[in-house]
Amino acid sequence: MDRLEILDCTLRDGGLTNDFFFDDLFVKDLYLANVEAGVGYMEMGYRASKDVFDVDRYGKWKFCDEEDIRRIVGDDPSQIRLSVMADVGRTDFQRDILPKKDSVLDMIRIATYSHTIDEAVEAVEHCHGLGYETTVNIMAVSNDTEETILHVLERLAGSSVDVVYLVDSFGSIYPYQIAALARQYADVLCPAGKQVGIHAHNNQQLAFANTIEGMRNGASLLDVTVNGLGRGAGNCPTELLVGYLMGQGIPCREEPFMHFIQEHMPALKKDGVVWGYDIPYLLTGQRNQHPSKAIEFIKECRTQYTDLLKELAV
Amino acid sequence: MDRLEILDCTLRDGGLTNDFFFDDLFVKDLYLANVEAGVGYMEMGYRASKDVFDVDRYGKWKFCDEEDIRRIVGDDPSQIRLSVMADVGRTDFQRDILPKKDSVLDMIRIATYSHTIDEAVEAVEHCHGLGYETTVNIMAVSNDTEETILHVLERLAGSSVDVVYLVDSFGSIYPYQIAALARQYADVLCPAGKQVGIHAHNNQQLAFANTIEGMRNGASLLDVTVNGLGRGAGNCPTELLVGYLMGQGIPCREEPFMHFIQEHMPALKKDGVVWGYDIPYLLTGQRNQHPSKAIEFIKECRTQYTDLLKELAV
Repeated sequence: MDRLEILDCTLRDGGLTNDFFFDDLFVKDLYLANVEAGVGYMEMGYRASKDVFDVDRYGKWKFCDEEDIRRIVGDDPSQIRLSVMADVGRTDFQRDILPKKDSVLDMIRIATYSHTIDEAVEAVEHCHGLGYETTVNIMAVSNDTEETILHVLERLAGSSVDVVYLVDSFGSIYPYQIAALARQYADVLCPAGKQVGIHAHNNQQLAFANTIEGMRNGASLLDVTVNGLGRGAGNCPTELLVGYLMGQGIPCREEPFMHFIQEHMPALKKDGVVWGYDIPYLLTGQRNQHPSKAIEFIKECRTQYTDLLKELAV
Repeated sequence: MDRLEILDCTLRDGGLTNDFFFDDLFVKDLYLANVEAGVGYMEMGYRASKDVFDVDRYGKWKFCDEEDIRRIVGDDPSQIRLSVMADVGRTDFQRDILPKKDSVLDMIRIATYSHTIDEAVEAVEHCHGLGYETTVNIMAVSNDTEETILHVLERLAGSSVDVVYLVDSFGSIYPYQIAALARQYADVLCPAGKQVGIHAHNNQQLAFANTIEGMRNGASLLDVTVNGLGRGAGNCPTELLVGYLMGQGIPCREEPFMHFIQEHMPALKKDGVVWGYDIPYLLTGQRNQHPSKAIEFIKECRTQYTDLLKELAV
């Protein structure tokens, strides 16, 4: 592996739990924890289009205006590289992505489904031309055929993208399947000079195991969130992966995250932000379904799992 | 694999969270759920010696008197087989294990450390002679050398034991290490006609992943607890494994557990029973330490993880 890097996407995936209303102290302390811990990349949030999303309805990390990021990181004198995520169809790449020399960002991560791969590649070439590192995160591959996945990977191998992400959107993929997929991604992409990334969800308590398996089979950019903060069952918790990597002799530190968690996570929970493994997410994950019905079930404070089982079977 | 069986140890490992004070309705409904779901074995609790443990201090499932079990299951007309656990040094095998013909139990599970393997084998031969299936569960192998493990496995291969358990006592073992250990266990034991079992803990959110990995590498008796109920971070949750096995075409059902969980688990939580993944258990698991300091930390409602980090480093 050329390089093995952790990417913290606490603000971005975690923002889906609180509509991106993180206060500046939270964001600043997270930045400092990531820097102190030796994390390679930090994602500040989405750069969503203000034509598509109402700025009064979402916190600022949904849009990641340049001045908001700079208020936290200044000119980012640290080693850490900063990214934002941009969804195909929800970001105005032409208008909202500045030339790299005018931005404190280093990387644009482009999220797409397989069927919008053309738009994703177009966005890659645009951002690459502006001077950024780029990733493509192919969502919901558990619904794609092998042929589709291969086609998309080959398309990306011929593009300027730097990293292609294996994403377990529904938390439905088992570790040995992740291993096989990661090898497939690496086989197609590494000869073309690309890296593979892994982004896992915790519906079946497999986010950490899948991240390790991905890593052992060719993935070298590893997505995590502090405390697993993220929509529904959440993500691979930073503190699990960092502990593992420390044991492997990879330079990184756990203590900054323990400090961050004890300082900030109780307040977030007190504010009513809910995330993490729970039975309803398990049931959608097992069935390779989007967690929306599970999220609704929990939001409505329902407790009859047997009813949800029936609803998911429809 | 000759046979693949789930073993429910909710009462036994879960009993460590509430000193075995489960009421009869809980136990009866769990039995019925296991029967309906197609679980192979149900562990009723420990058969601990009343000379070692105070009967007033613990609930009845610490001792599993024959009449207590029969009050729940009658003569157990179902397909399910019943077990109790007996710790080397804490059970009076001569006095407290009845001849199989006088008991509703089918299996005695003997828990031991490597250094008490002689006493464990003696207990195996005694219980085997009484007519029971037997298992040996070797605890804390993450502290044993490869030579020690091999020696113990060879000793057991030459005994009358039916199943030998790979146990991740501290939740410190990673899936690829579980895979290698399960293969080692199977290589030594299967030619001697023994089965391998897997018993995982969830300190690093790996109990389910480790159970799958164990199964894929030779383990065929799979320990679970409903909702992961168990000491500290708990165990491999029944509902995760059952969902996976259903997807593999193995006959078992998830719905009885959803019903059981919604009926019984809220009351258990309301009674103050605490279990499941939490940061302090992660920290002991990562360091291959017994969870006792983490359990104490949580019991004392402490929240400064950075202090615990320092205490674990001593």
